[in-house]
Amino acid sequence: MDYFAESLKHHERYGGKLSIESKIPLETKDDLSIAYTPGVAEPSRAIADDINAAYKYTIKKNSVAVISDGSAVLGLGNIGPTAAIPVMEGKCALFKKFAGIDAFPICVASQDPEDIIRTAIMIEPVFGGINLEDIAAPKCFEVENALINELNIPVFHDDQHGTAIVVAAALLNALKLSCKAIASTKIAISGAGAAGNSIAKMLLALGFIDIIVCDSKGILDINSPDSAKAELATLTNPEAIKGGMPEAIAGADVFIGVSAPSILTQGMVRQMAKDPIVFALANPTPEIMPDEAFAAGAKIVGTGRSDFANQINNVLAFPGVFRGALDSKAAKITEEMKLAAINALASLAGESIDMLLPSPFDERIVPAISKAVAGAKQ
Amino acid sequence: MDYFAESLKHHERYGGKLSIESKIPLETKDDLSIAYTPGVAEPSRAIADDINAAYKYTIKKNSVAVISDGSAVLGLGNIGPTAAIPVMEGKCALFKKFAGIDAFPICVASQDPEDIIRTAIMIEPVFGGINLEDIAAPKCFEVENALINELNIPVFHDDQHGTAIVVAAALLNALKLSCKAIASTKIAISGAGAAGNSIAKMLLALGFIDIIVCDSKGILDINSPDSAKAELATLTNPEAIKGGMPEAIAGADVFIGVSAPSILTQGMVRQMAKDPIVFALANPTPEIMPDEAFAAGAKIVGTGRSDFANQINNVLAFPGVFRGALDSKAAKITEEMKLAAINALASLAGESIDMLLPSPFDERIVPAISKAVAGAKQ
Repeated sequence: MDYFAESLKHHERYGGKLSIESKIPLETKDDLSIAYTPGVAEPSRAIADDINAAYKYTIKKNSVAVISDGSAVLGLGNIGPTAAIPVMEGKCALFKKFAGIDAFPICVASQDPEDIIRTAIMIEPVFGGINLEDIAAPKCFEVENALINELNIPVFHDDQHGTAIVVAAALLNALKLSCKAIASTKIAISGAGAAGNSIAKMLLALGFIDIIVCDSKGILDINSPDSAKAELATLTNPEAIKGGMPEAIAGADVFIGVSAPSILTQGMVRQMAKDPIVFALANPTPEIMPDEAFAAGAKIVGTGRSDFANQINNVLAFPGVFRGALDSKAAKITEEMKLAAINALASLAGESIDMLLPSPFDERIVPAISKAVAGAKQ
Repeated sequence: MDYFAESLKHHERYGGKLSIESKIPLETKDDLSIAYTPGVAEPSRAIADDINAAYKYTIKKNSVAVISDGSAVLGLGNIGPTAAIPVMEGKCALFKKFAGIDAFPICVASQDPEDIIRTAIMIEPVFGGINLEDIAAPKCFEVENALINELNIPVFHDDQHGTAIVVAAALLNALKLSCKAIASTKIAISGAGAAGNSIAKMLLALGFIDIIVCDSKGILDINSPDSAKAELATLTNPEAIKGGMPEAIAGADVFIGVSAPSILTQGMVRQMAKDPIVFALANPTPEIMPDEAFAAGAKIVGTGRSDFANQINNVLAFPGVFRGALDSKAAKITEEMKLAAINALASLAGESIDMLLPSPFDERIVPAISKAVAGAKQ
């Protein structure tokens, strides 16, 4: 199927993807008097008396803002907030499909981080959570940190933490199937943007020690002018290795690519440790195609694509994470909640090397992750 | 029925009133590939190439932001943005019910007009129109004017113009039934907030000449420190009458109250011209109860309430106005569009003095108004 042509047709035929419906009946004058004036004054008065009653009488307890400035959309790059709308609508549709959450796209008409932060703070009252989406690094770190500090609702940059949760769950299962231990596993990450940064930090939190991160210029340097990259270099690369991807990957057990098409050669895979694990997540063209990776000796391969085994996709994480955070009225999404999500997701698959993760349609996922998240330290 | 108790129960049972649904199927991997990655890249690319394609491929062509700071909510006053959520959700539900429009509540966490303006500008990309709601005067004028100047989508403060359209339509029909002429009709308006201001200006645009506006301190003075009130005083009150409601109403053919409960006495009604028209729109308690007004000699009486004849309610106007503006991709809602809406609405009723306006459930309303609005000068 030509997904691009079909998608264009579908988007035009339906006029976008989201519909806003009334949950309560509006067929009679009495219905209007209950849903609107005069009756609606009563829930408003109750909230004026106790602002927490908003969780009882409004959509706040089940609503998420999907906020983007369109600065780093899919593989398309900086296409701006209006062109990002179809992606954000899609994300909202997935929130409903997989977690029953009412999500609405907020595409911010500015790419200044201060504007994004201010807008999110201004629109917060009606939302129970904020999902930041497709905001370029390093701006995304500033935006997320500011909002976590300013707001008392969960704020989650999915490109960072959603990706990191799913990659980590897949990796734990891959290591189990390879009989490799966390402490001795050597990992090379290609990509130091939102995803690469969060994956590296999440793996450190899980106890991995030997992690090297490269961006397009090579192994990260502690003197990088990009403060996020400099910080990441100090956290990783314990041996202060210099060089490019070939130096980073020599002897590595695991390659994790969140970078660019076709940058991983078969020659590089051959330089990895025995039975290497290759997660080539660039979309739509991975860092290396699975058949090439296997031919060069890879034992386990994952991509971001649905047409190969081991699809490593955020949709496995964010619905359950938000469901758990909303259900438990969490004020933040803590590290403990993310780690709980990783373990819950990993527990649902991992029986074989082509089944590292469950299918997105596996109905056990959201209940398992949301329960783990809601039960974790908040 | 106790609408307040029922409303509280309904809001809790349903968890607020709005639900966000996907219009396109999400049951299979192919569905996901069309609605989300990789297919969604194609409509995004099309919009990146031509920003107007957002009207073709996204919800923008049918979406309205209902924006409030909660500073003047119903009769409740300044209850703040969070307590305003039930009202804004209700408005969104009415948008869907009556005009098929997808409306979403944006309750702004600041009552500074600059913040409201900036937030509306920032969230504009996904919306085809903006309905300002329950923002206190005179701030509402500043906010609306700034947004009309800054944005290329229709911006409409319903408390001003929606009210004015419905009042004007009811008044035209009342005058027809009373055989009174526009040019010689004397009007007293009680209330100089958002509604009173817009009603007075709309009636001037319709050719009414003799209009006096009072606020709680009496007849508006051209030296008022409130610039909106001073401007309104210069536009109305041609005889520079001073005094209070008793002076304003003496000899008036029409009383229009958008002010406070029970401020119109039977004695005042008796001072009006022969066969007076009384629109007592304060909610839930009108400026005078209909039976009292009739007993004092009123010929035609309207209120804001559904339990009396002649309910004068914004819901008769805003769905059709926005439907017409969205359908015609209008960049603004012009005076001509508002006047067209008045005449379209008036044409649907006016056969008798207890039927000045159609019922909100009359299915002719939205088609008639939207057609008139779309066909008016833009």
